[in-house]
Amino acid sequence: MTRLSPSGAFITFEGGEGAGKSTQLRAVAPRLRELGHDVIATREPGGSPGAEALRDLLLFGEHDLSARAEIMTHFAARCDHVDRVIRPALAAGKIVLCDRFFDSTMAYQGYGRGNGDPDLLALIHSLRNLTGLTPDLTILFEVGLETGRKRITARTAVNDAARPAPGATDRYESADMAFHARVAQGFEAIAREEPARFIRVSSETSGVETITNQVVSRIEAFLKAR
Amino acid sequence: MTRLSPSGAFITFEGGEGAGKSTQLRAVAPRLRELGHDVIATREPGGSPGAEALRDLLLFGEHDLSARAEIMTHFAARCDHVDRVIRPALAAGKIVLCDRFFDSTMAYQGYGRGNGDPDLLALIHSLRNLTGLTPDLTILFEVGLETGRKRITARTAVNDAARPAPGATDRYESADMAFHARVAQGFEAIAREEPARFIRVSSETSGVETITNQVVSRIEAFLKAR
Repeated sequence: MTRLSPSGAFITFEGGEGAGKSTQLRAVAPRLRELGHDVIATREPGGSPGAEALRDLLLFGEHDLSARAEIMTHFAARCDHVDRVIRPALAAGKIVLCDRFFDSTMAYQGYGRGNGDPDLLALIHSLRNLTGLTPDLTILFEVGLETGRKRITARTAVNDAARPAPGATDRYESADMAFHARVAQGFEAIAREEPARFIRVSSETSGVETITNQVVSRIEAFLKAR
Repeated sequence: MTRLSPSGAFITFEGGEGAGKSTQLRAVAPRLRELGHDVIATREPGGSPGAEALRDLLLFGEHDLSARAEIMTHFAARCDHVDRVIRPALAAGKIVLCDRFFDSTMAYQGYGRGNGDPDLLALIHSLRNLTGLTPDLTILFEVGLETGRKRITARTAVNDAARPAPGATDRYESADMAFHARVAQGFEAIAREEPARFIRVSSETSGVETITNQVVSRIEAFLKAR
């Protein structure tokens, strides 16, 4: 894997539905800016105009794709996002905070939908190598399945520009609990494989602000230690 | 490359704009059926509902994708088409005739848009290996650039369900002549690399029916020789 960011840093926020990663990303970004960092916040799938068009198709499209095609479409969107947004930002020395990256593809498509099928896991590994960019640091937010489910239900009832209608759930939010259990197990397996890249944060009981403080101090420590 | 078709056969029709491959495919399929073959005719990008949605985005989408992302989206659509349509048909012993396949990605994205960039050619090779299906036979239709251009102009003036409006050209039809010259050179280079897989047919001067007869007899000879 190429480190493309001699000055910038690429930090991803990962986790299952309702784990709080998007909430935390919105809170952490301004805190890091206050500390003097040049930060951009982005998300996947999407993050660039072409990738957002692919996101719409993946999350709300009329036709589902085969398991392999879904994986490859996630990586196609990722390539556009990396080429158009992430690489230029890192080259300019920025801190890039990204809500989901390839670990989500591994957890959701490899473990969740694919149920750990070795051929699909190998495909995801190959595509990851082809994309050629690994996060410098990944914060994994973990929450119990029941708590996560309650948070999704509360969230999807709210009108949201990203949804076709209030209450509409995307393909992944509307999947069953067994799927989300496999996703959680997938994230655990991934974090065990690359312990140096991961910081694991439980969002089960702590308040939002406590977790934000914790994440900001861990990122600060990481940036200073480089 | 895996040969997935012990009984079926996977035959692709390739060429630049206006080379006549789609016209020939429509003429050749019923002729092969008359000869007793179980034939399905399909096309790329597209060929399955999910892949057709990706096709719309690739050909008529508002935002263009980065070079790498465009290549990966073509292969994502291809995976869906292979998984949902081509593999099942081959497994059932059918002859699959496909209008464009990965040689078009190599010619259009690798040579045409990518201008032979070695990184993009290597990416296409890797994705081809990941997709895991190679045509048994490829008919390459070749035509002079000027003749091809005249045929596109005639074609796009006609109303066509595949176009958002009469006269609308897709991303590739509307590219400049230098692009189409690189595409033609790309197809030549690809056919030279795998001569055993290719039959090259000039559509510059012969009439449609003459070419159809020629293609049907070449395919018949190929199927008998197996």
